[in-house]
Amino acid sequence: MNNELHSLRVNSDRMRAAFDELAQIGATGDGGINRPTFNEAHLAARAWFREQIENSGLEFSTDGAGNHSAVLSFDQPKTLLLGSHLDSVPAGGRFDGALGVMAAFEVLKTIRDAGLKLKFNLEAMDFTDEEGTLVGMIGSGALAGRLHRDLLQNPRGGRQALVEGMKRAGLTEEDILRVARPQESLAGYLEVHIEQGKRLERAGIDIGIVSAIVGIWSYRLSFIGRADHAGTTTMEDRRDASLGSSAFTLAAREIVMNDFPNCVANVGHMEFAPGAFNIVPARVDVRLEFRSPDEEEFKQLDAALLERARQEARRFGLELEVEFLGKHSPALMSDQVQSLFGESCHALGLSHMSLISGAGHDGQSFDGLFPVGMIFVPSKDGASHSAREFTEWTDCVNGANVLLQTTLKLAM
Amino acid sequence: MNNELHSLRVNSDRMRAAFDELAQIGATGDGGINRPTFNEAHLAARAWFREQIENSGLEFSTDGAGNHSAVLSFDQPKTLLLGSHLDSVPAGGRFDGALGVMAAFEVLKTIRDAGLKLKFNLEAMDFTDEEGTLVGMIGSGALAGRLHRDLLQNPRGGRQALVEGMKRAGLTEEDILRVARPQESLAGYLEVHIEQGKRLERAGIDIGIVSAIVGIWSYRLSFIGRADHAGTTTMEDRRDASLGSSAFTLAAREIVMNDFPNCVANVGHMEFAPGAFNIVPARVDVRLEFRSPDEEEFKQLDAALLERARQEARRFGLELEVEFLGKHSPALMSDQVQSLFGESCHALGLSHMSLISGAGHDGQSFDGLFPVGMIFVPSKDGASHSAREFTEWTDCVNGANVLLQTTLKLAM
Repeated sequence: MNNELHSLRVNSDRMRAAFDELAQIGATGDGGINRPTFNEAHLAARAWFREQIENSGLEFSTDGAGNHSAVLSFDQPKTLLLGSHLDSVPAGGRFDGALGVMAAFEVLKTIRDAGLKLKFNLEAMDFTDEEGTLVGMIGSGALAGRLHRDLLQNPRGGRQALVEGMKRAGLTEEDILRVARPQESLAGYLEVHIEQGKRLERAGIDIGIVSAIVGIWSYRLSFIGRADHAGTTTMEDRRDASLGSSAFTLAAREIVMNDFPNCVANVGHMEFAPGAFNIVPARVDVRLEFRSPDEEEFKQLDAALLERARQEARRFGLELEVEFLGKHSPALMSDQVQSLFGESCHALGLSHMSLISGAGHDGQSFDGLFPVGMIFVPSKDGASHSAREFTEWTDCVNGANVLLQTTLKLAM
Repeated sequence: MNNELHSLRVNSDRMRAAFDELAQIGATGDGGINRPTFNEAHLAARAWFREQIENSGLEFSTDGAGNHSAVLSFDQPKTLLLGSHLDSVPAGGRFDGALGVMAAFEVLKTIRDAGLKLKFNLEAMDFTDEEGTLVGMIGSGALAGRLHRDLLQNPRGGRQALVEGMKRAGLTEEDILRVARPQESLAGYLEVHIEQGKRLERAGIDIGIVSAIVGIWSYRLSFIGRADHAGTTTMEDRRDASLGSSAFTLAAREIVMNDFPNCVANVGHMEFAPGAFNIVPARVDVRLEFRSPDEEEFKQLDAALLERARQEARRFGLELEVEFLGKHSPALMSDQVQSLFGESCHALGLSHMSLISGAGHDGQSFDGLFPVGMIFVPSKDGASHSAREFTEWTDCVNGANVLLQTTLKLAM
């Protein structure tokens, strides 16, 4: 690239005006937003984005999965996707997803204004339902041709919520399942996102270059004992399901911290039955998920956790039922894109470090299909999925400029 | 008493027909019943009992606390209460409480049929909410004048459940608090109940004569951490409420088994918030109860458990909120009644032994007001608060005959 291109920067003020306007839609009054997929505020944010695109002179595009995008076409056979999502978790923050869409949109406007001609068309995406209010990554999964009909039949937010949501957004199941794009039409996917953790902030580093997005495996583990009268049954005679679930919860943490430092595990819920003060718990259902960036490590952690669950069940005279609830596989980011991100940071005078993403992102949907790259900007106190979420505007602009420079490196 | 009275026996077939009919109401299909206070089945059982009383020719009586009773009046100033309760724990057994009410009802019919004239009126009680779905011993506590207004404001089953339950049963708080009977109008309280333990079965003894009923203290302990993203928050950075609740649950068992061999403790329920797979638990509410036959031991166990809860909260960086949910004090049974129970057993050719009751019972409500006595019949395998609960019919009839004979000894 020539020097003029190296010195190209996004328009910080224009990007901020758009970002701040978007943050008003579904604002909860405490700095956060509430835009779960297809609620009123989310539909309003989508309509606002469409209007912004149409007013910008870029081309508006949508598909059967409700993905919205701004297109900057150079009449090329391949398109490089940039973007993120406008939906949020309930009572979420205003940066998660929104920053990535606004940065991508600004990058397209900057390149259009500079009058450049690239070898790939550019498209700034707002992917549908990244956060999983209804299904999780509906938009990117559908575009990749990897959204299974089964998943729509038994979605994690419940079938009724999905049906009602699709109706509000004017989508149909058949349309959603028909939006897959030919692999050869896509050149790659780049995303900028807040870190949702404290690693950049602690290290005082400007940009995190994601090397992998962790996978997630989830289980329901049921420790099964016997309901008995909590006054008349001696401690020795009990088969108390709470002892298995409690011992396992403590042990899972020890296993991960001692032997799997790249992984995390969470017992997010326990359901007690019958659940009365005066009855020894007969059954405790434990909701377990664990995450790893590596498929081999997953197998080892899985074996270690399940073996420990069996041991703790045996120790307290309990049965163990194991129900596997599915998984998202880990995704490796493109080496080439990681290297170009690093060069862009260097050229922009920004420090950078390699990070694993502990959260899921739309890039996972494209694993193995075409090059995927992702960068993080620092999150204050690591706050995430919360109104406390905050990133300095300088960091937001840094992310957008790394996205711009890397887009140019890939597409010139 | 003359020989004719000594040979008086309950009508086993009539009592069984009533017992079996009652066991159909709220039957869960596995031998158990589900009649938590004022659920649909419990209201149906109460209506059925009322109809049985009215059809029997005995007098039906009820009060502002929803106690139902059959009255056999001899126009005496004092009444001897017999009885138990028709409510059950969730998914409970068909003998707990129901046997005592049916035995008391049958004793009244037997005495009425024999044309006897006693020095006390007799009343076969179904006391409201013995099991504590809402508050615990509402009916007997109210009748004793010992139900405090505070307890109704902050009941262990939650205020909303109490308000809705009272509404379904047509009760009001003011009415409940007005049903206390004058102490001088009551001659005593006798109850037959299943043992809910294995001591009689193991010893091969027919009848257990209760010497004392243990007290119960209950708490809600809330371990409070912080909700965080379960993917992006390192294990070290978490303040995971489930760790405090789990460590406490295991520790409570150790404390009781090692240092308080006469006591028991139970963690019957944990409530997780927010309760999602992918969010670190911010708060776990633990339902704890513990029991002791001795007031001094209660204080020591209480101190040991709360100190340990504080320690475990500190260890995992959590806050601890402690909410005392009330107590039932231990109660000593009347020496005179215990002795008369023994004489009745002897006359009936039944073996007997003295036992402490690990379960709470309505008799506790009357401690110190008038003589209280209680007998147990054997429970197969000690099963209790469970569909597996079972007592041989011969043992049920033995209990009813001891109740009959002891009633005659007290009231002739």
